[in-house]
Amino acid sequence: MNRNITEQLAPIFYPKSVALVGVSNAAMNVGYMFLQSLLDAGFPTVYPVNPRGGEMGGLKVYPSISDIPGEVDLAILTVPREAVREIAKECARKGTKAIVLYTSGFSEAGTEGRALEEEIVRIARAGGTRVIGPNCLGPYNPSARLIPNFILPKEIGNVGVISHSGFLFYYLLMSVTDTGLLPSKGVSCGSDSDLTCVDFLEYLGRDPDTKIIVAYLEGIRDGNRLLKVGREISLNKPIIVLKGGHTDAGIKASASHTGTLAVSTAIWKTLCNQTGIISVDSFEQMMDALLALHLLPRTEGKRVGIITTPGGLAVISTDACSQLGLEIPQLTTETRQQLASVVESMGTSVNNPVDLGIIGALAPDHYVKEAIRIVAADPNVDMLIAAFTGPPGDDDSRDRKVADILLSEIAKGGKPTVICGATPQGWPRGELRFLAHSNVPVYPEPRRAAFALAKLAEYSEFLRSAPA
Amino acid sequence: MNRNITEQLAPIFYPKSVALVGVSNAAMNVGYMFLQSLLDAGFPTVYPVNPRGGEMGGLKVYPSISDIPGEVDLAILTVPREAVREIAKECARKGTKAIVLYTSGFSEAGTEGRALEEEIVRIARAGGTRVIGPNCLGPYNPSARLIPNFILPKEIGNVGVISHSGFLFYYLLMSVTDTGLLPSKGVSCGSDSDLTCVDFLEYLGRDPDTKIIVAYLEGIRDGNRLLKVGREISLNKPIIVLKGGHTDAGIKASASHTGTLAVSTAIWKTLCNQTGIISVDSFEQMMDALLALHLLPRTEGKRVGIITTPGGLAVISTDACSQLGLEIPQLTTETRQQLASVVESMGTSVNNPVDLGIIGALAPDHYVKEAIRIVAADPNVDMLIAAFTGPPGDDDSRDRKVADILLSEIAKGGKPTVICGATPQGWPRGELRFLAHSNVPVYPEPRRAAFALAKLAEYSEFLRSAPA
Repeated sequence: MNRNITEQLAPIFYPKSVALVGVSNAAMNVGYMFLQSLLDAGFPTVYPVNPRGGEMGGLKVYPSISDIPGEVDLAILTVPREAVREIAKECARKGTKAIVLYTSGFSEAGTEGRALEEEIVRIARAGGTRVIGPNCLGPYNPSARLIPNFILPKEIGNVGVISHSGFLFYYLLMSVTDTGLLPSKGVSCGSDSDLTCVDFLEYLGRDPDTKIIVAYLEGIRDGNRLLKVGREISLNKPIIVLKGGHTDAGIKASASHTGTLAVSTAIWKTLCNQTGIISVDSFEQMMDALLALHLLPRTEGKRVGIITTPGGLAVISTDACSQLGLEIPQLTTETRQQLASVVESMGTSVNNPVDLGIIGALAPDHYVKEAIRIVAADPNVDMLIAAFTGPPGDDDSRDRKVADILLSEIAKGGKPTVICGATPQGWPRGELRFLAHSNVPVYPEPRRAAFALAKLAEYSEFLRSAPA
Repeated sequence: MNRNITEQLAPIFYPKSVALVGVSNAAMNVGYMFLQSLLDAGFPTVYPVNPRGGEMGGLKVYPSISDIPGEVDLAILTVPREAVREIAKECARKGTKAIVLYTSGFSEAGTEGRALEEEIVRIARAGGTRVIGPNCLGPYNPSARLIPNFILPKEIGNVGVISHSGFLFYYLLMSVTDTGLLPSKGVSCGSDSDLTCVDFLEYLGRDPDTKIIVAYLEGIRDGNRLLKVGREISLNKPIIVLKGGHTDAGIKASASHTGTLAVSTAIWKTLCNQTGIISVDSFEQMMDALLALHLLPRTEGKRVGIITTPGGLAVISTDACSQLGLEIPQLTTETRQQLASVVESMGTSVNNPVDLGIIGALAPDHYVKEAIRIVAADPNVDMLIAAFTGPPGDDDSRDRKVADILLSEIAKGGKPTVICGATPQGWPRGELRFLAHSNVPVYPEPRRAAFALAKLAEYSEFLRSAPA
């Protein structure tokens, strides 16, 4: 059905021109913010549209869409609800490829709004114009300089972002950036009146720049298609979803937000199992899973080798892994013998969890490095957590050296390895910062490290169980 | 049995003099670090002890405990395991009030270590000397300038801290400080060979400077006493515990760490129910609960009124509350009418969750303030979550003003209210920072806000159900 989704949605993510309909320089006018941001990002062709005409940001303001001389790929409508119908007609007439409907007050606002929304979609589609929204912010694509807000990154990454909520769209884009990764493309798709989250999922699934997808979804209009598309994409790249509105109370709240149909927790879980979609319960969990699924190789199983410097971290790392469905295997005799030849004998343990003692924290470039080498080679171990803090002090060149030594050992080990830093503010954290900047997932506490590995194991298990 | 625990442990938390036995200026000598930190903090009387004698940090080094002319309240032993027995004898002979045994390799290391540990406790107790540890860092008390590490705060707060793990002791003290609160006193108690975590819990329970207690505990030697003491304290101040070593794998790990008996998840849960101890699964959860339990009034029930500016936050806040056992009540007709007179009609909701729309984010000093006023007055609502971000920009005096207006409304409302900021880095967060600095709990995402309220509800329910 959507073989040509890449072609169909190209004018949305790579528009040659954008019309901003309803832009004014009144305080807080969102169209004006779009205008300034697009110009600032160097987007080539922007047409401000406002019946009053005049000039804005150095550009001629056109009284209407029809008055624009050139073609319009994307029209972003920030007009009052009452004005949308006529403008949609004009867009359809002009052959505008797509409308982003920022305006709210449609299906999410009740029966009358729903009827109007359906009418607008009919009008648009009759002229070959697709509709994104209503109640949305539309696309973001730094590689096309399509950057609708100053706060969003201009650099190009490879995390695709989809959100039913406009506010959470920016929130997600910024959160991805906070992890040290960057978005490839994104879309705030609102109420899915015409193009839906599944269309955008399919587009990003086929987008070569997008290596992993994170999404905040509320209602799903076409569950059957999501089943098919989700599974197809998951086989190639992970999809991590925070599903809003699956408890009874949340479903009610969602209905008045995006106006789409909600699905219960049970249905959602089944759908995730069948598609390989990784479901999370919070944005923090989403970003933690994102780091692991994007940066780590797949795991062969659920058996975690834990290496810690101070003992308490060993215990809570073990508890967290167990609670989250991971296993803490026995290490082989050979491994334990090798560890015994490296670690000090006092206040340490060569069983799993391996406790290197406080000396391990003082010289991680020797103790943690050796432990990673030995434990990663153990056939009983699929993944590793190394929980440590480095020596006190603030010596960047030493920290960088320690990080490089650990990085090299992690790479040689070849097994998914995460670092747990356990570093409140003010705590020395030198080499952990360098590790994080070198694309090693670093988490601030054992439970979050264990959670990320549990999600990696879940996705890897999906890939293994899928027919070749 | 321990009526006089305050008196008994006074020499530990308010020692007049500390002997550092085993101190040397060798690299990484932990005794030397204690020495420097105590002197830096202005602790009055420190006696370095080392058979080699000489001078250190401007102080005379005594060859042995017996050579010290004055009384010794607290002796911190950082000597090799083999030396501990003789030094314990000396301490007992001198009438040292307590020994902090930093040294490891005792009960956590097997049968032989356990026998030695028991012998040392017998020797010490025979002279009236109490033992803390082994395998611990001992007490911290800024009000007595007893500060054993440079990184720990010198200011005095009111959060008591107990940890079986030495590393996690510092980690906890620093994490408390990161929340904006400060510790009152703390103790790293190691293997509980003589004085146990329950003794310290009881001490902090009776300490007037300590208003709330956080603890990382592994094995509990005296469950029956914890039942009695825990309940007694919980009736006066909350105790929040992260219990390490309750899964099967975690119990094994704990045995080789502190050497104490572990308790299963089921037993631990029962114990928490009976004592009112608030159990958490991670340090992040501990700090989130700490803010709510310390800063908020008790709640009359579990019904949460949710106020948000952008709709997506309304949905996930609702989901999170539902999943965590809180209720999202209907607001009264009167409340909804009042809200309708305040909020804009487009893209908003006057039902619970109350969605103020994007305008609420642009002018929280009006919209969020009014919503807090109206919702807090609703008899169906016990607690409030206000999820919002302020207007973009970086105007400190405006942000301060907005925060003050909200603060005043929250105080007038009189119901437990938390703020969810949803602020990735780089996101405008002005008034949220001021709110956090004014002792309003601010969380970065809805799930953590809901978790904190769920823990507040749990503790409040314990207080309500306890016989007067």
